[in-house]
Amino acid sequence: MSDSSPRKIIAVLGGTGKEGRGLAYRWAKAGHQILIGSRTPEKAQGAAADLTGLLGGKAAIRGTSNSEAARRADIVVLTVPYAAHRATLESVSSDLAGKILVDVTVPLVPPKVAKVQMPPAGSAAQEAREILGEGVQVTSAFQNISHEHLLGNEAIECDVLVTGTSKEARAETLGLVRDAGLVGWDAGPIENSVVVEGMTSILIGINREYGGSRAGIRITGIG
Amino acid sequence: MSDSSPRKIIAVLGGTGKEGRGLAYRWAKAGHQILIGSRTPEKAQGAAADLTGLLGGKAAIRGTSNSEAARRADIVVLTVPYAAHRATLESVSSDLAGKILVDVTVPLVPPKVAKVQMPPAGSAAQEAREILGEGVQVTSAFQNISHEHLLGNEAIECDVLVTGTSKEARAETLGLVRDAGLVGWDAGPIENSVVVEGMTSILIGINREYGGSRAGIRITGIG
Repeated sequence: MSDSSPRKIIAVLGGTGKEGRGLAYRWAKAGHQILIGSRTPEKAQGAAADLTGLLGGKAAIRGTSNSEAARRADIVVLTVPYAAHRATLESVSSDLAGKILVDVTVPLVPPKVAKVQMPPAGSAAQEAREILGEGVQVTSAFQNISHEHLLGNEAIECDVLVTGTSKEARAETLGLVRDAGLVGWDAGPIENSVVVEGMTSILIGINREYGGSRAGIRITGIG
Repeated sequence: MSDSSPRKIIAVLGGTGKEGRGLAYRWAKAGHQILIGSRTPEKAQGAAADLTGLLGGKAAIRGTSNSEAARRADIVVLTVPYAAHRATLESVSSDLAGKILVDVTVPLVPPKVAKVQMPPAGSAAQEAREILGEGVQVTSAFQNISHEHLLGNEAIECDVLVTGTSKEARAETLGLVRDAGLVGWDAGPIENSVVVEGMTSILIGINREYGGSRAGIRITGIG
């Protein structure tokens, strides 16, 4: 953990899905304590057991309800499909006071998932902000990372753009990006999340058009 | 011109500005015929003379009014500041029937230019679509390329995402991207332009935050 953030308790809500599992795996490997949350705690316990096995038994990962995971964590990461976004946030809202909610959600509208279609709030992250109110810092990150990459150990050729409601919350989230083995960038206020969420639709379209599955983005020209 | 698109007449409206001059320079170098448009034709003629000089006299570049440039061109590129976007489009609308309008405009709202703030239409390109109606194909491109790069000859470390109202119009615009010496990607329907226009604000913020002037993006993971 010498290069990692101080050890934290990280809740991954919707952590039984592929994106959530991948992030939980990487953060557990970096030494953080992980609480996988699910509407069905038994599924969360199953995912926790799987990931602990993948890590050779040397990981602090537990499965529980979304609400308990949110209540006991230092920082809470939301990785549910967009259809469950509002209901999950409303169910844990009271557990988030004073914490940071890292929203990974992309508001895809099937069947046209390669077309940018944002909710009335402007983006999923701004919708989270509306639901949670001023007492919770909301950041937005990891939307462009293909879950196929996260459970491997190879370098990931995609940067992470972090937007959020305060510079401090973005800095904290950038620590989690580093601990996941990724390159992150402070991409400004939460209003900018429309760009990052929408980029996922463009990358889906590029994968289709150019015959790939791993399109990503890199920031160039700095340093 | 062996690798370039067939020789075209390209109008660059607002072509006396830095972005417009840079694009005109690169397309003239690739062998296209350029009409620089301006509200003040004398200024356009001055810019045309400057660029012809830069190219050693061997270029087909003329300066004229925006309206004449639009009327005589095969394809029309709009590079005005956002404050002049609507008025310029309205003034050339009747000259654009059956053509492609390539919108380079970024709807920055000073002083918070690092915060994404889109017009009610959703993006500048969608606003152009509303103003011009169904008889004009609108594409959107080049918003993330710093003008400092275009007048040089070195490779530019920033890809161009092209959105637009039809696949054919995007393909045509991708030809112009190649002719400018840049790597382009079909980024889908015109609704996706919010991502590309908004990315400019994120890149401005990254330049400020990380101390640079040339932040760009690359698409990775394909091929």
